[in-house]
Amino acid sequence: MSNNQMVCKSCPEAAADIDMQDLVAKLEASYADRIGVNLAETYNLPGQAEVERLIDRLLEVIFPGFSSSPRHRESLNAETTVLLVELKEELLSQISRAMRFGCSSGCCGECEWTQRGSAAVKALFAALPDIRALMKFDVQAAYDGDPAAVSLDEIILSYPCIKAITIQRFAHVLYQYGTPLIPRLMTEYAHSATGIDIHPGAKLGRGVFIDHGTGVVIGETAVIGDFVRIYQGVTLGALSFPTDAHGVAIKGCKRHPTVGNHVTIYAGATILGDITIGENCVIGGNVWLTEDLPAGTRIIALPPEQQKKQRSGKPRT
Amino acid sequence: MSNNQMVCKSCPEAAADIDMQDLVAKLEASYADRIGVNLAETYNLPGQAEVERLIDRLLEVIFPGFSSSPRHRESLNAETTVLLVELKEELLSQISRAMRFGCSSGCCGECEWTQRGSAAVKALFAALPDIRALMKFDVQAAYDGDPAAVSLDEIILSYPCIKAITIQRFAHVLYQYGTPLIPRLMTEYAHSATGIDIHPGAKLGRGVFIDHGTGVVIGETAVIGDFVRIYQGVTLGALSFPTDAHGVAIKGCKRHPTVGNHVTIYAGATILGDITIGENCVIGGNVWLTEDLPAGTRIIALPPEQQKKQRSGKPRT
Amino acid sequence: MSNNQMVCKSCPEAAADIDMQDLVAKLEASYADRIGVNLAETYNLPGQAEVERLIDRLLEVIFPGFSSSPRHRESLNAETTVLLVELKEELLSQISRAMRFGCSSGCCGECEWTQRGSAAVKALFAALPDIRALMKFDVQAAYDGDPAAVSLDEIILSYPCIKAITIQRFAHVLYQYGTPLIPRLMTEYAHSATGIDIHPGAKLGRGVFIDHGTGVVIGETAVIGDFVRIYQGVTLGALSFPTDAHGVAIKGCKRHPTVGNHVTIYAGATILGDITIGENCVIGGNVWLTEDLPAGTRIIALPPEQQKKQRSGKPRT
Repeated sequence: MSNNQMVCKSCPEAAADIDMQDLVAKLEASYADRIGVNLAETYNLPGQAEVERLIDRLLEVIFPGFSSSPRHRESLNAETTVLLVELKEELLSQISRAMRFGCSSGCCGECEWTQRGSAAVKALFAALPDIRALMKFDVQAAYDGDPAAVSLDEIILSYPCIKAITIQRFAHVLYQYGTPLIPRLMTEYAHSATGIDIHPGAKLGRGVFIDHGTGVVIGETAVIGDFVRIYQGVTLGALSFPTDAHGVAIKGCKRHPTVGNHVTIYAGATILGDITIGENCVIGGNVWLTEDLPAGTRIIALPPEQQKKQRSGKPRT
Repeated sequence: MSNNQMVCKSCPEAAADIDMQDLVAKLEASYADRIGVNLAETYNLPGQAEVERLIDRLLEVIFPGFSSSPRHRESLNAETTVLLVELKEELLSQISRAMRFGCSSGCCGECEWTQRGSAAVKALFAALPDIRALMKFDVQAAYDGDPAAVSLDEIILSYPCIKAITIQRFAHVLYQYGTPLIPRLMTEYAHSATGIDIHPGAKLGRGVFIDHGTGVVIGETAVIGDFVRIYQGVTLGALSFPTDAHGVAIKGCKRHPTVGNHVTIYAGATILGDITIGENCVIGGNVWLTEDLPAGTRIIALPPEQQKKQRSGKPRT
Repeated sequence: MSNNQMVCKSCPEAAADIDMQDLVAKLEASYADRIGVNLAETYNLPGQAEVERLIDRLLEVIFPGFSSSPRHRESLNAETTVLLVELKEELLSQISRAMRFGCSSGCCGECEWTQRGSAAVKALFAALPDIRALMKFDVQAAYDGDPAAVSLDEIILSYPCIKAITIQRFAHVLYQYGTPLIPRLMTEYAHSATGIDIHPGAKLGRGVFIDHGTGVVIGETAVIGDFVRIYQGVTLGALSFPTDAHGVAIKGCKRHPTVGNHVTIYAGATILGDITIGENCVIGGNVWLTEDLPAGTRIIALPPEQQKKQRSGKPRT
């Protein structure tokens, strides 16, 4: 049975009585509706592993030598060219696949998915220098905002917000061009690695700093200005959302906050609904906010009422 | 010393003065009690990497082609058969190893660990079609509950709750059959990937949706009904637990909540103790609950008292 | 274009009109300031993948056979020796690289980075038996503190706090010896895997147990005593920090809490500033604390005021 000679004399056939044919038949019946089945013959899906590889290479364009071996100055131009050419092929393959998947009426070979895939790739490539420019603001914002930060390189190497925000910026371009599946795969890769969950639809300004980041949730229609600083556990979410007659959420409407420039949001604050936080506001830890906040306001939550008493009995050992 | 010629002429032997023999001797002495030492000669432990590989293959049974290349319709039956046959061998090997480890009185070759291992594998195989049926409800619940969700495929590909819940369903079967170590290894794999920490002992109904999920904790004896919706940062935990004379937690008693069907629990709510939340309840963000809640109740936490003032001085740049 | 024959006859050149030369030129211009560019010719950075490999091998020294195949009793001494000798080379390479990077005035070949690298490696090696001794207290503390824990092996295999705390103990030694970059790379690896974010600078006692752990943040100058128990979502953070004339955080001052022995801190508590929590204190869930707490104090946050009402209308389906 197992490779390590753990055979029991009294039950050599113990697991052999799994009726494999019956099991396969049951599963096959369950696959018939094709929910959760990715068939090669249909509009098959982009691959998770392939998309993660794309992300790593896109990050390499933004931060050369950080996720790979150090680059050589003299070949940096050449290496970048090679990287981009390879990346173009791979992006076209995965994005075209996603676009074809999104082509719900079947694909005739004459429809627009290849054009739309090419347009999305072109837009992402065109955005790369801009994303690199934005990341310089993000890195500087982390340095300015964290007393524990020692160097810009340390921030790029090890701050989770840099990874999460840069990946979201890639995903946002593809989201704008209507790419199915891939933007969300990208941001979930970042979410898994960092605990920071930013929807591809969110619009982020420059110089955004998210410290620690675990538990941060930024929803699809959130808009975040320049030089905004956000701490762990902050939610920029929806207050509630309209549902149709069947109780299914209606998709698409603006339902998340708009945050002005130079706003600071401390840990655990919950900001819900399509509200506007004016410039230069400071939102304290654990604040609960569902209404607009005028520019320049500092809002704090008074701590909960607390009771202290001296412990009796033996202390915990 | 290093590969990159970073040799300092003045200190070529700088690190050579580590007394390696002394260090090994100290470590060896520390290994003598065998705490944290996995010896091949004893009831050695299941391997982390092997268990993760098992999880990936089990997920492939539930969602064919999602974590691998797309499947071909004509060979789906055959591929499933091959996958299951290989999986059976690997599961028997790892689970038997865990069962043997759990056999605390030493293994005589006549004891029941092989039978118990076979029984656990058989139960998990028998449960696979049921788990697949449950996941269809889970995926639909995510679609119904999230305005940002675009397609069922997107949810399966990229929503962390699908991974976390499906893996917990595998682990729960093995937990019920008394498998040591592996169920917890499985759910910690999910916890690491998603931030959602569901103990293998928890009982989950169908159509469970956990949105975002980071920081969610669901304890060992929690029971969750059908079509329950849970947001990030929710704890279904223990209020306190009895300890023995040495202050060590007594194991096993029911100490976590039971949640009825169609309950919604918003972000950051803390629900503690062996209490019952009736059907159709809605529990608001940051609610703190340690008592039963009758069916159909909406409970909200009033926001903390908050103070606003206009900021003076120069805004943050 | 793609490998899967998704060529559209009407637009074979659709993506070919990306002006690759122009794109590379823009990126090259952006690389000119060398922010976020890791050049081989300069003080190039330690590699992320290499540091993760170092961590895995260091963990193998502390818990032999847990992350690899089981060890053989008769060769445990020999295997440990081989592991340590290889580890020494790799550590010297990466740490020397980090030290050289930190050598801001340029490296003349006569400066102290190699000595400092060797000293850090030597200190880390000398600390390994101590770290192993500490981990035994940590593992026992988890067993004592979690009713769901079944065995010490289960805790070592699958409790995220064991990984997070052990890695932080490695990082702390290197931090004390002034190693740039690597300590933070190490703790961010742990943060990504566990959701527990402990800065390398924090000082941890023995027998520390962090249950669940997602969202825990422990800042650079925090000090944690022996047998402290911490639950998910706890922040030991800074209340505020002084900034210079440009609004940039001033680095280095003590700004995080000091926590005494045998303190328990329940989920979601926020403890901010350079304050002292006396021995044997119990801090309830969601407490907000910015002042000293005398030894033996139990402090709880009264739950927020809450409102219940019976729901009208059709329950959610």
